[in-house]
Amino acid sequence: MNVSRRALLIGLGAAGGAGAMYAAMNALGLAPGEQRSEFEAPRPSDFALRGKAAAKVIVLGAGIAGLTCAYELGKAGYDCTVLEASDRIGGRSLTLRGGDGLTDTTGERQTAAYGEGVYFNAGPARIASWMVTLDYCRELHVPIEPFVNSNASAYVYTSGMKAPVRFRTARADVYGHLSELLAKATSQGALDEAVQPADKQLLLDFLRQFGDLGERTTYGGSERRGFAVYPGVEPGAPLPPPPTLSELLGYQLAPALTFDLSADQAMPMFQPVGGMDMIVQALADAVGRDRIKTSYPVTKIVNVPDGVEVSHQDGTMKAAYCVAALPPHVLAKIPGNLDSSVLAALRVAVPFSAGKLGLEYGRRWWEQEDRIYGGITETDLDIGRIWYPSEGFHRPRGLVVGYYNFAGDADAYAALRHPERLEKALAQGERVHGAKYRKDLLSSVSVAWANRPHIEGAWANMPPSALLQEPAGRVYFAGDWLTHLVAWQAGAFESARHVVTSLHERVLKEN
Amino acid sequence: MNVSRRALLIGLGAAGGAGAMYAAMNALGLAPGEQRSEFEAPRPSDFALRGKAAAKVIVLGAGIAGLTCAYELGKAGYDCTVLEASDRIGGRSLTLRGGDGLTDTTGERQTAAYGEGVYFNAGPARIASWMVTLDYCRELHVPIEPFVNSNASAYVYTSGMKAPVRFRTARADVYGHLSELLAKATSQGALDEAVQPADKQLLLDFLRQFGDLGERTTYGGSERRGFAVYPGVEPGAPLPPPPTLSELLGYQLAPALTFDLSADQAMPMFQPVGGMDMIVQALADAVGRDRIKTSYPVTKIVNVPDGVEVSHQDGTMKAAYCVAALPPHVLAKIPGNLDSSVLAALRVAVPFSAGKLGLEYGRRWWEQEDRIYGGITETDLDIGRIWYPSEGFHRPRGLVVGYYNFAGDADAYAALRHPERLEKALAQGERVHGAKYRKDLLSSVSVAWANRPHIEGAWANMPPSALLQEPAGRVYFAGDWLTHLVAWQAGAFESARHVVTSLHERVLKEN
Repeated sequence: MNVSRRALLIGLGAAGGAGAMYAAMNALGLAPGEQRSEFEAPRPSDFALRGKAAAKVIVLGAGIAGLTCAYELGKAGYDCTVLEASDRIGGRSLTLRGGDGLTDTTGERQTAAYGEGVYFNAGPARIASWMVTLDYCRELHVPIEPFVNSNASAYVYTSGMKAPVRFRTARADVYGHLSELLAKATSQGALDEAVQPADKQLLLDFLRQFGDLGERTTYGGSERRGFAVYPGVEPGAPLPPPPTLSELLGYQLAPALTFDLSADQAMPMFQPVGGMDMIVQALADAVGRDRIKTSYPVTKIVNVPDGVEVSHQDGTMKAAYCVAALPPHVLAKIPGNLDSSVLAALRVAVPFSAGKLGLEYGRRWWEQEDRIYGGITETDLDIGRIWYPSEGFHRPRGLVVGYYNFAGDADAYAALRHPERLEKALAQGERVHGAKYRKDLLSSVSVAWANRPHIEGAWANMPPSALLQEPAGRVYFAGDWLTHLVAWQAGAFESARHVVTSLHERVLKEN
Repeated sequence: MNVSRRALLIGLGAAGGAGAMYAAMNALGLAPGEQRSEFEAPRPSDFALRGKAAAKVIVLGAGIAGLTCAYELGKAGYDCTVLEASDRIGGRSLTLRGGDGLTDTTGERQTAAYGEGVYFNAGPARIASWMVTLDYCRELHVPIEPFVNSNASAYVYTSGMKAPVRFRTARADVYGHLSELLAKATSQGALDEAVQPADKQLLLDFLRQFGDLGERTTYGGSERRGFAVYPGVEPGAPLPPPPTLSELLGYQLAPALTFDLSADQAMPMFQPVGGMDMIVQALADAVGRDRIKTSYPVTKIVNVPDGVEVSHQDGTMKAAYCVAALPPHVLAKIPGNLDSSVLAALRVAVPFSAGKLGLEYGRRWWEQEDRIYGGITETDLDIGRIWYPSEGFHRPRGLVVGYYNFAGDADAYAALRHPERLEKALAQGERVHGAKYRKDLLSSVSVAWANRPHIEGAWANMPPSALLQEPAGRVYFAGDWLTHLVAWQAGAFESARHVVTSLHERVLKEN
């Protein structure tokens, strides 16, 4: 959507409310309330019309941002070369399979021993339906499938609890107690100022359904909690009675019960069939493998009047433009002649830690015994959460993410070697799943993003930088860290599109 | 789980609370809080040990219940014959593909013209993870995939609204307003009797997160609502401001916002890859196709001292036992010598109407324009709801369920011929999706379950009948209608297991 349509809609929304905006959106042929910025890929005909030619571009970094820049520019015939410091493409979009090796900045080397068909998305693993990532899956013919981001049958386990509780049970109890409380306040007249008399009955009716309260508008449990024995020929056998409000508040359930309400985590979410790096591989194929050089770290980036000179192991390469699609804190360390204000802006970035552990089991006990088919168990332990696989249901093997943790918890695991990480995580997982958590374990790999060479962090937090949205001379910057979608592949795609548009406009004017 | 373990757990739960029960379940090697009744299939060795032989059994009806009886009994060598009145197996588990015909009791004939790879689950279409149906998928090697039962990007549309609203928006606004109200009552001391002083702050903290309220504990919108333009390089452009509490209550959102909280509808749910009838086909293969006779209506069922005589077009067939796996209201009409008390019990059943319309489109506009990938739009229109496909994402074609409605709404559509049903449903769907709802439509089929020969209803409601759980002479009864899972395939499976267990025990004793 171009700027004027966007401004029009925002203006209409503010002035005329939803009705006016939806009417306008309908007139423009748009679905209500879910748009992204429009993008038109450069085309060869853009040059033909103007009698100009595509330029040579060096892209630094073969992550999603870098590959997308080369892909989109390549559509119009730009001569792109992608230089990747590490020995594999994809950057943080890392899917590990049997035989894959991983050497950290600490020198520790792991090799995945996963069986046939088992994979571990060690980096990004889920896509929201509104994200541009899905458009690239469609364009690049990468099949997708649902990613189960939240599961009523998975557990919540916090230090306030005696034993793990299913999400469905926790949710039913919270909604029940809140509804009872609010019904009480409403009935007693405590909210007569906030609730119009005509709405009081509507509110009570709503709460009765929202909390499954029954006629007395008190919460005494609900079939929504699940059952000790599920119904069949016999009626279901109920679980033990719900906790009191006071017990429930002590469980500190808010983080677990609200994460999937956010715009970027709401169900359903999606994943590429076969592993997240299917997107990377499809992008690389579209760019042309011969244009991508791995194990090719850059040692210097110099703006010169008619181009950019990039130094590397084989000498110096020159191009009309350069796109630096590296993490900001890594880029800031590369020598060259970038302006000090630019370097200062890059150095504002704070790398953030995250870690993941991929546990391969020879039996899908979470499906067979716990009836958990995909989804996430949330804890307040140092493992953060346990993910169950959203694919390969009922197969003999499966991969469970034994931790996905952040900040201090991730740093603590990053400081350990893999065998210690594994032991620590298994001990925590046992608190949720009991002894079976150690049984049938076949192999494992852990990733500490802070220790990944040339990446050095799971993502980088920084305030929006107007300066870095613009090129520094002939060097452009691309990456999720430049967008409002930090840590999402969608941010890398959006940033790449922004750079491509801006670079192409300049080339059309300047050449 | 056998009765004594079940009773023990229920007792412990009631007496000792969750802690005692979970401890006991752990000791028994059981996952907390999600069990089904145990089942042991008959084995050939059951006879060998006792020097007895398997019996001959006639099964009436090749729906899930009938096929499962034949399948489970067949494991021990029972000689089963399945007689199906209609020309296809599966009963209500009906998946329609291109070329499939459908002739109703009204005489109207439809033929599906769906393209390659497009299918319409006209009957059951989703499976909860706790249901035994998944165990059969596993045992029979029927691959499953997630079924998107609720989608934050799908719409809610009720007569109180000017325009459809995304589920995520409706949910954010409801949780926000409710949290603000409850925070207000709590802060004002209105709930001091119900909320312990020590819990007050915990409750307020919870509400701040639950409603995304911010420090002032008032609701002024939230990123959870979604955006007019989603974030990228630019921050997201907000939607128009949220409705007032009064407007929101007028929308009557409770049915839409609570259906996926119930035990049988909570996310994630599942479907067989390729169509629901994959289960039926796998069952039929396991039973042996030669044991199943279609277009073979039964005209008389007579208990005789040493067996059951079943009359049909070719004469009379005799077996030691019969399992009647037909809808109760259909079974009640078949002549024979069933006891009048049994017939009276069958006649209590009330057939319930439901209808579905399968719209095939040549463009997946709901994905491309609305960013809806699977899930359900809920309305209070006579179409009930619109389902988007949970499979085939990004493919050229796709199948949308244009209505799934019940009772009076279903009867109204059932009374029309297909072209009129289609026109009526398209006019309703246009109110949600606008003019594009008619564009790119390729073909359609509608099913009115009340008009299906030999089925005559979507399901049958009846109170639990102890009488019909027992055999009437040598005739057993099987079907979802005999369980607490009416309308679910899981009910049919559970009932079949009950009958098989009971019949096999009798044979082992009697033979």
